[in-house]
Amino acid sequence: MTKYKFVVTIALAMLTGIRGAAGPSSDAASAVRSYCDSHQAAILREFAELLAIPNVASDAVNIRRNAALISSMMERRGIAARLIEGKGSPVVFGELRKPGATRTIGIYAHYDGQPVDPATWTTPPFKPTLRTGSIESGGAIVEFPKPGEKAGDEWRLYARSASDDKAPIVALMAALDALKASRIEITSNLKFFFEGEEEAGSIHLEELLRRNKQLLDADAWICADGPVHQTRKQAVFFGCRGVVSATITVYGANRGLHSGHYGNWAPNAAMMLAKLLASMKDDSGRVLIAGFYEGIEPLGEDEKRAIREMPDSDAQLMREYGMAAAEGAGKSLAELINEPSLNVDGMRSEDIGAQARNIVPPEATATVDMRLVKGIEPARQLQRLIAHIEKQGFHVVKETPSQEMRLKYPRIARVTSGDGYQAARTPMSLPICKQVIKAVEESTGSRPVLMPVLGGSAPLAVFASVTGIPQIGVPIVNHDNNQHSSNENLRLKNLWDGIVVLAGLMTMK
Amino acid sequence: MTKYKFVVTIALAMLTGIRGAAGPSSDAASAVRSYCDSHQAAILREFAELLAIPNVASDAVNIRRNAALISSMMERRGIAARLIEGKGSPVVFGELRKPGATRTIGIYAHYDGQPVDPATWTTPPFKPTLRTGSIESGGAIVEFPKPGEKAGDEWRLYARSASDDKAPIVALMAALDALKASRIEITSNLKFFFEGEEEAGSIHLEELLRRNKQLLDADAWICADGPVHQTRKQAVFFGCRGVVSATITVYGANRGLHSGHYGNWAPNAAMMLAKLLASMKDDSGRVLIAGFYEGIEPLGEDEKRAIREMPDSDAQLMREYGMAAAEGAGKSLAELINEPSLNVDGMRSEDIGAQARNIVPPEATATVDMRLVKGIEPARQLQRLIAHIEKQGFHVVKETPSQEMRLKYPRIARVTSGDGYQAARTPMSLPICKQVIKAVEESTGSRPVLMPVLGGSAPLAVFASVTGIPQIGVPIVNHDNNQHSSNENLRLKNLWDGIVVLAGLMTMK
Repeated sequence: MTKYKFVVTIALAMLTGIRGAAGPSSDAASAVRSYCDSHQAAILREFAELLAIPNVASDAVNIRRNAALISSMMERRGIAARLIEGKGSPVVFGELRKPGATRTIGIYAHYDGQPVDPATWTTPPFKPTLRTGSIESGGAIVEFPKPGEKAGDEWRLYARSASDDKAPIVALMAALDALKASRIEITSNLKFFFEGEEEAGSIHLEELLRRNKQLLDADAWICADGPVHQTRKQAVFFGCRGVVSATITVYGANRGLHSGHYGNWAPNAAMMLAKLLASMKDDSGRVLIAGFYEGIEPLGEDEKRAIREMPDSDAQLMREYGMAAAEGAGKSLAELINEPSLNVDGMRSEDIGAQARNIVPPEATATVDMRLVKGIEPARQLQRLIAHIEKQGFHVVKETPSQEMRLKYPRIARVTSGDGYQAARTPMSLPICKQVIKAVEESTGSRPVLMPVLGGSAPLAVFASVTGIPQIGVPIVNHDNNQHSSNENLRLKNLWDGIVVLAGLMTMK
Repeated sequence: MTKYKFVVTIALAMLTGIRGAAGPSSDAASAVRSYCDSHQAAILREFAELLAIPNVASDAVNIRRNAALISSMMERRGIAARLIEGKGSPVVFGELRKPGATRTIGIYAHYDGQPVDPATWTTPPFKPTLRTGSIESGGAIVEFPKPGEKAGDEWRLYARSASDDKAPIVALMAALDALKASRIEITSNLKFFFEGEEEAGSIHLEELLRRNKQLLDADAWICADGPVHQTRKQAVFFGCRGVVSATITVYGANRGLHSGHYGNWAPNAAMMLAKLLASMKDDSGRVLIAGFYEGIEPLGEDEKRAIREMPDSDAQLMREYGMAAAEGAGKSLAELINEPSLNVDGMRSEDIGAQARNIVPPEATATVDMRLVKGIEPARQLQRLIAHIEKQGFHVVKETPSQEMRLKYPRIARVTSGDGYQAARTPMSLPICKQVIKAVEESTGSRPVLMPVLGGSAPLAVFASVTGIPQIGVPIVNHDNNQHSSNENLRLKNLWDGIVVLAGLMTMK
């Protein structure tokens, strides 16, 4: 027995060493957690009310209903709230001053969500539903708790944006309530910036930030978007990948032709698209577009160390996601998210299965997103993609081709794209970064996973480029939240922990 | 002038030589044509009534309404009509005896149509609409003619199955009316067989034919399906390609994952499908599946000659369809339809454009159809396809994979398929074939285009294999009818010509 005990002790010490010194969480954290325990019903009720309002950015009417509700939620907490209008959805902006404070912390989240296909949801996306666990693990639908009742930590709240990204908004409000109830004062001036079109690519964000630059002045902006680490450990990230998406349509004949009479004579747009996409990556997942990996700004030593020290959850994730193999030629997920990527988001050409018709498809379309790292601008990567398409023999256009153009070029690809946004990376060694890491550690009682960048893209990059202010990500939601997909959900323990962490940031030394 | 006149005369003589001797059409043909001229309104009214009933094979209620209307149309012409019931849609069968006739001619058509996506139709698919020309050429909507009025020859009737394949049913009825009005008697016993699930793959046809074999006894079966030649010349065909379709689904992770956090690490099902499809054909359109072209039963000398003599309409079609290039490495369309083919009918993976989400698609599906020629059975070609998919590293299954299977195999493809049907080819030299060719020639006044096989597939092949009776195709509809696609239509001149041709068959010597 002695021998085994010894081994275990060593192993624990090693783990502790790798992940940083663990200690008890602060008194403030205990007070906030205890408030959450006794106010779950009210917090979840307010959350459900917000989730019930559809929030796809293109739905302007409901977007304004979301903004109005969030404004009133903020005003109830004494935050001076206002809408900043731009060309798209309004930003809900608010300030909370702390007399005598010498530091200002901005906090970013977004209240819009990804488009939904209700047919693929188990329960409707805008009907918040509580379950005793994830749908995959057989979680059953349960009533929302009544005042005084407690929900299970592993229960999940299902709705579009339950995680991405209404969770931090609700958590911030609950954190303020908890601090007030515990008579704990905030230690910085606070600014809140809740965007309404992040999932639509934040296309008007840059202009809006430029027009309101002095409002944004702060010592740091905290981005409360994205998930915690897949090991469920709290993470802090210091940047994110940029992104630029493109929609590519290729053309066969000018109408759907009978596949018996014209198949293998008339060009097949679906096959043409398949071949074009296939030319973009090799079997290991490496992108074959010329220059795709050129210009990457190298990582610093502290960033390389942080990546090495990140817990390896690849095997766990592969089991969870039902994967027998991963792309990346043996590189870990932690390494891969520091590289540029190309992903096919979706593709469509005519119909399949019972709805398929025996025709030669006249058109086929794919949407791809390309993630960017520091040193590679959106426009540059897009140009490389277009050059690749041209190299495959396509005449690339922006509009639907005319009959005349069709008769001239055997291969035509229409490529449309937004501007995307660039990658950002705040140096981890800045004093404000260290303060945030320490505050999170004190809230949770253990050192967070430090990530030089988050794999996903966030407007953090636009904030960084417009303001030059340090950007630090403090995500709170579970990684397995089906973000961007059907059955998006939030694990309740992440909500309670998130409230504690955000309260910790608002009261950090 | 003399010189030029001479050249023109020679050219005309050459054309006549190539396409067979032209002569005036028969007296019977003139009488039928004159009847059509004065009864257009009534014929089109009856046609529109039939087209207004939705006819997708899976819609059992409306399929029976179609069958009931067709039965009553037949009974009005003195045909003893009945429904032959099987597992699927009923067959509408009828007989018209000619006392003393020593020959029996069966005529096949089908009353069901391809599935429709109403959103892609200019006018609703089951609201028959008359236009002054094709939509592509700017044809305007016009009223149906009133009794005594005439429609333009280039006018088009738009509706699902206006061509494929309710047109021959209506034309046969009109032909019988015209013959009766002109006091011209039929010369053979006639059998009518109108199928109700051809577009659903005629999956129950073989069993139904076997159970009713003596009913089908005839000297020949005429298949009134498919379009006339693209030069608008009347065609006669003697076989058709077979077909077998397959739906292929490939799998990535067991859910849609955020492309920023997991892209280029989690396998992308859309890219996997693109690579799989791309592996199936080379850039010239040649199928790369091992053995795909093996076992083809060679064409006879008369068939080869018929192919050589077919008018070359490839350049005209490419202009019409907006194609700058064709597949087939320089082979003509007429040659290519005598080869097996593989066509992607459609593919789907998540969403595109404004509906695209930044996720790694968990699934991607394509439906392909493979056309078959004599010597290659459906099951054999399907097996070659599956072997090819396996050779690309996929574990091929019939059901949705379990979590356990996902963790075992990096690549899984689910392949589902119907039985398809085989190709058929009746020897062109049979006496009955010559009689039919002569009857068509007398109706139209010129030698028809003779096609050893039609590119499309027809239940003709099932008739051939079950009955062993010669099968001859006499199509009547225009090739540019958007068959199987949106905005299906019939050019009215094809209807009037078709009535004359079918009347000619019913009165052939």
